[in-house]
Amino acid sequence: MTTAAPVVLDAMGGDHGPAETVAGAVQACREHGVPVTLVGRAGELRAELARYGATHEIAVTHAPDVVPMAERGPGALATGKSSLAVGCELVRGGAGAALVSAGSTGAVVSCAVRALGRAPRVLRPALAVALPTVTGGATVLIDAGATSDPTPEMVAQFAVLGVTYAEEVLGVAEPVVGLLSIGSEPGKGNRLARRAAELLALLPHRFHGNVEGHDVLAGTVDVVVTDGFTGNIVLKNVEGTVRAALAQVAAAGIAPPDRLAEVARRYDPGTHGGAALLGLNATVVVAHGSSRAATIARACVVARDLSKSRAGLRS
Amino acid sequence: MTTAAPVVLDAMGGDHGPAETVAGAVQACREHGVPVTLVGRAGELRAELARYGATHEIAVTHAPDVVPMAERGPGALATGKSSLAVGCELVRGGAGAALVSAGSTGAVVSCAVRALGRAPRVLRPALAVALPTVTGGATVLIDAGATSDPTPEMVAQFAVLGVTYAEEVLGVAEPVVGLLSIGSEPGKGNRLARRAAELLALLPHRFHGNVEGHDVLAGTVDVVVTDGFTGNIVLKNVEGTVRAALAQVAAAGIAPPDRLAEVARRYDPGTHGGAALLGLNATVVVAHGSSRAATIARACVVARDLSKSRAGLRS
Repeated sequence: MTTAAPVVLDAMGGDHGPAETVAGAVQACREHGVPVTLVGRAGELRAELARYGATHEIAVTHAPDVVPMAERGPGALATGKSSLAVGCELVRGGAGAALVSAGSTGAVVSCAVRALGRAPRVLRPALAVALPTVTGGATVLIDAGATSDPTPEMVAQFAVLGVTYAEEVLGVAEPVVGLLSIGSEPGKGNRLARRAAELLALLPHRFHGNVEGHDVLAGTVDVVVTDGFTGNIVLKNVEGTVRAALAQVAAAGIAPPDRLAEVARRYDPGTHGGAALLGLNATVVVAHGSSRAATIARACVVARDLSKSRAGLRS
Repeated sequence: MTTAAPVVLDAMGGDHGPAETVAGAVQACREHGVPVTLVGRAGELRAELARYGATHEIAVTHAPDVVPMAERGPGALATGKSSLAVGCELVRGGAGAALVSAGSTGAVVSCAVRALGRAPRVLRPALAVALPTVTGGATVLIDAGATSDPTPEMVAQFAVLGVTYAEEVLGVAEPVVGLLSIGSEPGKGNRLARRAAELLALLPHRFHGNVEGHDVLAGTVDVVVTDGFTGNIVLKNVEGTVRAALAQVAAAGIAPPDRLAEVARRYDPGTHGGAALLGLNATVVVAHGSSRAATIARACVVARDLSKSRAGLRS
């Protein structure tokens, strides 16, 4: 695997299908210089590529099956003929530098884990997302949805993966970890969080202790660690709440809509280009299911950059 | 217990102590016509009342002990001499119509459950908060922090309590319930949510199915039900994210700060006046720990109104 290897894009994943993924691949290639290989139904993909005159610019690998967005587990992947499974195989074999998919998070996680394997000593993978903070920096939220029922030991490992990501991708020196819980005092939380807090205190990293829901965007810590159920709900709650707050401002008629849209874009799922699935033997970026072309392109850029740095992908 | 019975205010609860709670009681009494009885260290409370010339206006019941904000369980309440425990006793005995406390949620819940008792067939109490939606209405978030490790059966009961609250307090006819989870498709979620979804489908209420983090403020459903750990994190995440988004708008200099503050107040913990602790034999309102006088006053109004309607407080 060299840095010149293309990013492999699961072109059938996502709510909007090949129309948006192919457009995103063309953008990634032409505007960001990222080589991309598309995986999916070759006929459909070539027809989309033809619309941009990009048939000879972007390679296509045929995969006849599509994993439905409602698919959670590995069931439908058993044939190995889905665009997701074939894409994972390309990366595993070294023909691709990294995988990007806007498919069902559950399906991408289970397929990638099976095909690419967990890095040594990693119990479960976790999704890391960098959220912009009011202080102008970013906070890594991990796990944003890969493992919905982790053990406390897994949560402690997620923190380590998040620290590596903050160090190597965001350039933070000695990142501070906070455990998402209810109440900032020690001992507050559900059973999982209380035990995870004890384990986090034993790690050779800077542990702030508990943080709360209002700390996620406040820049209180560099890494907010939680289980994948809570993390995914928080991630989507941030998106929805930003939208709601700015809609109230717009409805009050006190700010120009185009300037509000700029603020909204800071929190758009497209801004961070997707979530990095950490803890595997190769780079995987899961783009939002609702991603349009520009977001897919951004995810390809992030995947290329992550695969070059190899950062945060091994514990 | 008559409607003329006063609201009992735990005057020692909250981050800011008697200075704010007493000021809040005076506001509740003078501006909203709510009779209030203060419970706490009588000397301190009378000194504060004197500052407003309200010594003869508002009754004081002495309680020598204070429950620290870090207190989670019933330990420190064993003496029964804390302002919280004495306040609960006043309500239990009928000398108060309802209890308001800005103390530690965990302490208020455990003390209130012990003193007031759960309503028949209620397994665990739950906190209900009405959040303003972008559609101009409100969505009940339940449980917002009373029971951090519920069983699926408890979560299904929380939904029933939330429906009653939406019907009787917000005036919604046949409220629609959504289960907070990850992914809108059936079968998505952690173990707790997946089992709770099965139970919710069996209830004689309108069940939308799963909703996600971005649905909380979108008006998708009338009641968003979840466990108290996730619900408390979401509640505080909404507060923090509104703050962050409006701070970005303010920093961009595209809207007048005073008009932005108006929008912020819609989501302020003070706006909804506190969380109603449902499932007990009497009305209990838990105000935000950071509550200032106006928020305390609003919580007293909500408690008075809830105790009059007796709405949502019995399953």
